[in-house]
Amino acid sequence: MKSRELLIFDVNETLLDLKPVQESVGSVLEGRRELVPLWFTTMLHYSLVTTATGKYQDFVEIGVAALIMTAIKYDIILSKEEALAAIKPILNLSPHTDVIPALYTLKEAGFRMVTLTNSSKIGVATQIKYAGLTDFFEQLLSVEEIGIYKPHTRVYEWAAGKLNAAPGNCTMVAAHSWDVAGAHRAGMKTAFIARPGQHLFPAFPTPGMVVPDFSKLADKLLEL
Amino acid sequence: MKSRELLIFDVNETLLDLKPVQESVGSVLEGRRELVPLWFTTMLHYSLVTTATGKYQDFVEIGVAALIMTAIKYDIILSKEEALAAIKPILNLSPHTDVIPALYTLKEAGFRMVTLTNSSKIGVATQIKYAGLTDFFEQLLSVEEIGIYKPHTRVYEWAAGKLNAAPGNCTMVAAHSWDVAGAHRAGMKTAFIARPGQHLFPAFPTPGMVVPDFSKLADKLLEL
Repeated sequence: MKSRELLIFDVNETLLDLKPVQESVGSVLEGRRELVPLWFTTMLHYSLVTTATGKYQDFVEIGVAALIMTAIKYDIILSKEEALAAIKPILNLSPHTDVIPALYTLKEAGFRMVTLTNSSKIGVATQIKYAGLTDFFEQLLSVEEIGIYKPHTRVYEWAAGKLNAAPGNCTMVAAHSWDVAGAHRAGMKTAFIARPGQHLFPAFPTPGMVVPDFSKLADKLLEL
Repeated sequence: MKSRELLIFDVNETLLDLKPVQESVGSVLEGRRELVPLWFTTMLHYSLVTTATGKYQDFVEIGVAALIMTAIKYDIILSKEEALAAIKPILNLSPHTDVIPALYTLKEAGFRMVTLTNSSKIGVATQIKYAGLTDFFEQLLSVEEIGIYKPHTRVYEWAAGKLNAAPGNCTMVAAHSWDVAGAHRAGMKTAFIARPGQHLFPAFPTPGMVVPDFSKLADKLLEL
């Protein structure tokens, strides 16, 4: 049975360690590292604003605009070029140290594995290649293909369709509460990776699995 | 002609001064006022998450959950009751000082005026009454009535329908870039009030009017 199960992984923060981009963004915000979560949340908010208003815009473009807006709020003037340069390291991230051993184990056990990200098609291809994860995944799915951001329910339905899988046979794995919430609403199973600084949204249902890292994720998936 | 024009006002931050709630929220975040924008943006993000996943939840409930999640991120433990108590002052806000004189002028000039807010029906009724603004508005519209948060395009289309107005005869007035962006996409005219700390999202089209306060808004509307 396990071999028919499909694991869908979020990319940023879930597989890849965002520390380098948090550092470069903090640095152009005049070293105010405490503003980095505000930038990231503003980017997520505005990505959904484009979905709610029916006009897709590129994730990096949204990230750049969110960074400039965050900076202005604190009287920091940033050019588009400076903002883009600060975000660019997102293309060259390493996987969290627990990721590769767990992906090996899961691949060995016969799970089908794909990624599903808000990053663009070229963005995720670059990221996964740089991180050395290419061989683990049969597809790298990007919301760019349908022009709707996660966690809109249709994104997960579309992803399941692309994989010829019923949503109920898919497990969405993410370090973001909103991401697993969207997958759950689309009928998928869900696993939340409680990376440091990532927390569940208390007003949403608890995901099927809540684990601290990929090692525990693999253990739990193999138990099932 | 002017007398047929409809002005639709956002409530929180646009008409009403959020300072008391920023203070109470900052206070339960152990005095870390710099975390208040992260709380507010998280609330906005998760309100759209509920819309994107097709399950409406009350705005205050989202605000409470966002506050608890923001607190946990910084190792601050808050009960639901403490979080709710910190947000409650949102019901008892004063209008910004520029609001009442401008609303008088606009009412005199024959504009029809309503509010449109992410707050609940009972929430906005309480807010507008407390602020002493009841007589200015012919309706207090809440997204609760359709179960979709701003800036989803359908909210503005629904509001225009409720007012028997074409979107093109409505001007959405808001201190939030995402709010005017949604109204614009629905075919409304837009005016952005550049309240301190509020800035335009650089990746979106510039609103029809950008003014520092309601006094300038009234001047511009009367010039047209």
